Amino acid sequence: MSRSVAGPEIEQLIQLLARLPGLGPRSARRAALHLIKRKDQLLSPLASAMQVAAQSIVVCGQCGNMDTSDPCTICRDPRRDASMICVVEEVGDLWALERAAVINARYHVLGGTLSPLDGRGPDDLNIASLTERAGSGGVTEILLALNATVEGQSTAHYLMDQLEGSGITISRLAHGVPVGGELDYLDEGTLAAAIKARKTL
Amino acid sequence: MSRSVAGPEIEQLIQLLARLPGLGPRSARRAALHLIKRKDQLLSPLASAMQVAAQSIVVCGQCGNMDTSDPCTICRDPRRDASMICVVEEVGDLWALERAAVINARYHVLGGTLSPLDGRGPDDLNIASLTERAGSGGVTEILLALNATVEGQSTAHYLMDQLEGSGITISRLAHGVPVGGELDYLDEGTLAAAIKARKTL
Repeated sequence: MSRSVAGPEIEQLIQLLARLPGLGPRSARRAALHLIKRKDQLLSPLASAMQVAAQSIVVCGQCGNMDTSDPCTICRDPRRDASMICVVEEVGDLWALERAAVINARYHVLGGTLSPLDGRGPDDLNIASLTERAGSGGVTEILLALNATVEGQSTAHYLMDQLEGSGITISRLAHGVPVGGELDYLDEGTLAAAIKARKTL
Repeated sequence: MSRSVAGPEIEQLIQLLARLPGLGPRSARRAALHLIKRKDQLLSPLASAMQVAAQSIVVCGQCGNMDTSDPCTICRDPRRDASMICVVEEVGDLWALERAAVINARYHVLGGTLSPLDGRGPDDLNIASLTERAGSGGVTEILLALNATVEGQSTAHYLMDQLEGSGITISRLAHGVPVGGELDYLDEGTLAAAIKARKTL
């Protein structure tokens, strides 16, 4: 039988920390202990940073990104190529592309993928706002940077159908061997895609 | 070249989360995203819980435990056996023993181990307060529940020397095969200890 190890304030902290991805009940306890042992250096600053984030973060009404301003920093940036929209599933994907710093386009965050089995249809995603942006002029290319999963790819197909006839170039990310990847560890689908899209040297 | 993915408020949150044990830079980013996507259900409650913890947690002047009251819940609990003091290195060890609910004693948290190489001497640990508690009468046994590491065991030896002649029984945790452990995976030291302390059936 396990007893509560500390006051309800600490238990509450542990339980909330355990809901973070990557932290289980045990590591949440370790994290809580780490925090309360570093009250002034870590616990208080983190509490304030969370408070500030909770108060200031909004969803960008234009692209669906999360930032402290609406429109977000990227949508407001005049150096961004406004003729290209890079469509992603989630804000995390946007962050990943921004970290790689390989694209200078604006984004559009769908908020997930179509999933009829889970009852997620087109109206549950930011698709209407995408077709609106596509039709507002100035956009010449839409890159569907969706995950290479069944859900991601079927969502991409749906979007292609929706955007057909708009005169806008629709592109998708290339499939193939990940840079640094070893063939021995790759699945057949990836290998097949890499062979099909092989480049002549 | 990596760009900042979001405003300074989010970057600050990510950097503080990355200082939690068990979270690296990548998982801190994932945790931050998880938090800001669940602003009302998780981010705000966690911010408040941290604020409350930062304001209310104090170190127990008697045993060194961390709680929201001084003396702590355990030191105040009249059902605890006041004749036994269980000495641990850190508050985390106290929590581990409390979770197991195998001991009904009071505790004494040393705050670490002796480590001459790191410049940690007896004055840097809560040793004076332990000998004081031991000498205040009523205590009949002191269990040295220190880690089975070189530092833990040398600290235990030091404490034994300090408490010698007080008439108090000094005990330590048993060494042996962990319950559920397989011999094949155990080190020689553990096996040697388990054989030396073998029980006649």
